[in-house]
Amino acid sequence: MGILAGMRVVESSAFVAVPLAGMTLAQMGADVIRFDLPQGGLDYTRWPVTRTGQSLFWAGLNKGKRSIAIDVKSPRGREIAQQIICADGPDAGLFITNLAVAGWTDHATLAAHRADICTVTLRGDRHGRPAVDYTVNPAVGFPSVTGPEDSRDPVAHALPAWDCIAGNMVVSGLLATERHRLRSGTGQAVDLTLKDVAAAMLGHLGIIGEVQINKTRREKAGNALYGAYGQDFICADGRRIMVVGLTKRQWKNLLAVTGMAEAAGALAQALGVDLADEGARWTARHAITALLAPWFAARRVADFADMFDRAGVTWSVFRTFEDALADDPDLSTDNPIFDTVTQPGIGSYLTPGLPFSFTRTPREAPAPAPLIGQHTEAILSDIARLPDTEIAALFDAGIVAQPSKSDLKLAS
Amino acid sequence: MGILAGMRVVESSAFVAVPLAGMTLAQMGADVIRFDLPQGGLDYTRWPVTRTGQSLFWAGLNKGKRSIAIDVKSPRGREIAQQIICADGPDAGLFITNLAVAGWTDHATLAAHRADICTVTLRGDRHGRPAVDYTVNPAVGFPSVTGPEDSRDPVAHALPAWDCIAGNMVVSGLLATERHRLRSGTGQAVDLTLKDVAAAMLGHLGIIGEVQINKTRREKAGNALYGAYGQDFICADGRRIMVVGLTKRQWKNLLAVTGMAEAAGALAQALGVDLADEGARWTARHAITALLAPWFAARRVADFADMFDRAGVTWSVFRTFEDALADDPDLSTDNPIFDTVTQPGIGSYLTPGLPFSFTRTPREAPAPAPLIGQHTEAILSDIARLPDTEIAALFDAGIVAQPSKSDLKLAS
Repeated sequence: MGILAGMRVVESSAFVAVPLAGMTLAQMGADVIRFDLPQGGLDYTRWPVTRTGQSLFWAGLNKGKRSIAIDVKSPRGREIAQQIICADGPDAGLFITNLAVAGWTDHATLAAHRADICTVTLRGDRHGRPAVDYTVNPAVGFPSVTGPEDSRDPVAHALPAWDCIAGNMVVSGLLATERHRLRSGTGQAVDLTLKDVAAAMLGHLGIIGEVQINKTRREKAGNALYGAYGQDFICADGRRIMVVGLTKRQWKNLLAVTGMAEAAGALAQALGVDLADEGARWTARHAITALLAPWFAARRVADFADMFDRAGVTWSVFRTFEDALADDPDLSTDNPIFDTVTQPGIGSYLTPGLPFSFTRTPREAPAPAPLIGQHTEAILSDIARLPDTEIAALFDAGIVAQPSKSDLKLAS
Repeated sequence: MGILAGMRVVESSAFVAVPLAGMTLAQMGADVIRFDLPQGGLDYTRWPVTRTGQSLFWAGLNKGKRSIAIDVKSPRGREIAQQIICADGPDAGLFITNLAVAGWTDHATLAAHRADICTVTLRGDRHGRPAVDYTVNPAVGFPSVTGPEDSRDPVAHALPAWDCIAGNMVVSGLLATERHRLRSGTGQAVDLTLKDVAAAMLGHLGIIGEVQINKTRREKAGNALYGAYGQDFICADGRRIMVVGLTKRQWKNLLAVTGMAEAAGALAQALGVDLADEGARWTARHAITALLAPWFAARRVADFADMFDRAGVTWSVFRTFEDALADDPDLSTDNPIFDTVTQPGIGSYLTPGLPFSFTRTPREAPAPAPLIGQHTEAILSDIARLPDTEIAALFDAGIVAQPSKSDLKLAS
């Protein structure tokens, strides 16, 4: 029983953010129902895909949900979908989407079916234009400060960070709204745009102040930690590591373990700065790096790894995804957030559950993503409360669908 | 009245994630109280700073909170802090931290004061080692796939994405736990690590499946959109833009507006692929880019911007932070999430409020960050319920502090 057991959320979504929100709610124990077109939606074949074309992306972002395959382009399909979204129960009537359509899943339409419906809608930008992580990120400026110091070209992040942030905000927006409904009796429409998530973060991180108050231009700084000391180094074995001297303690530990305290003192004196001040470490970072680089160049990671850990140095190696999965026990079933899960059509592989641990609600093993329409019959019967004869007629008319009996059997 | 009005959360934190969580809760209307050391904590002078050394970073991440300056290194300071964390009220007894200390802010200690206390603790990794965004990101592999195709060197993101994601997860973890407490009467300890947040995301995004099922290696792809079509181009005015053809509609719109439908058809025929398939667009991306590049090279952004918007093309320009703030109305008070706020000691500048809009709980203007200890007296009196004589004695003993009268006057 997850911490949200009893809550029901309906999702109409594609791509990263809202699917991630629904998956997070499902891994917290909510009953999350997603509408799928019988042939799959916009992101059903999104890369990465297996050699047989199954989307590892879709499987990853829809774990633990239930799926009803329903043709929401048909009027009857829409009516049934609205019934499901607006089904009664104090812990239901919650809807998240990035595919809101006026006249059928907008808040006003749904509120005619259930007055206290809560909807959270993620859009591209506040003007109603489409936007994705790949367009929002260049627009707000992060690629201009990413990449090597000597490069002029902008570098976009590979992690769809704004999607991941926005998805988690959809979760908190929904929980806050449901909390408010419980106290006030009123539901509401919550709107959020991907662009605004990024725009707001520029302010939260102090970047707007830097431009408007300091009138300075942030430069590219390679892999250096901005504003204090943190740098990547190449070791004798060719491996690259990152070390961090952000806090006074981290800085002291780093100097102690590399035997550089005295040399750093001499450097500080030569430069006329106090390296106990984090800003001074940032300004002097190239000189500090020059001091430390030979130390790392003369040693293999294995020569200092244990020593660094014992000394409380904040550091890590750079890995590829392949190396991380091969070498890091945190990316294995040694880590209780992971389990090996069999995803029908794909196979068995390492699968993350919820990264939270709650002391009173035991950890649940991650569940696979549903087959498209795996739960069509149960949802029509238990939630839309349709009689069996009508359910049969809907299947016959092609308004709803489910996997073949053999696929269903394999998945259950 | 924000959507969380009435809720009280106490925060002991530094750096990005947990301060961001508290700030988000405060912007949703919760009364968020942060403990500050009288001289400021670990991140009180974190860059970017103004010329006079005021942290724009700290101001950005602590907006709308209340601050009590209290020496939590003294036994009496800790007792009072525990009283404040564990003060009664059904909507209080909520604590978030990344600085948990055994014996004074761990869950078991706090639960002795208030049995239903809910705590959310963010740590570095599950082994108790410190970790920051700058070490977690290289460890899980994203820098290895970031940056130009021809580069071998890993590139770290400049946005502290894992911190931003984890901070928003702290918000949802707290709201889920408070919801559970309301129904069960029991509080609990919630734990989350920055490393696990990143490790889990590898799985959610399909990257673990790519390694373990496909046994393929993800390569760097510059600024290309992974898995479909999306690319940056240089225009005749020297500006760089990003265009996206992720969905069928986006792809069709892009070809239509650039007049490339026929040429793309010939290209598809020549390559023997169906470019209506997003994976085929990814595989053929270099050829598609070669087709489109001359079109952009011959045009200034102003030549096609309106046309692209009217045609529903998903695109954006690349900007620096400075350009974004100078040129983009979404980063100005035209956007209702922003306001001009005066931050004492820093000045007036564009400041983001909550990016959500809620139909039933009106938008509130963003508030500045507190001065260290701005609310010491009120919190000791109203929440710790200490008599005036004892409050005076605590000030005399230096266990609590507040700004000078003139600073307080300026801030209020």
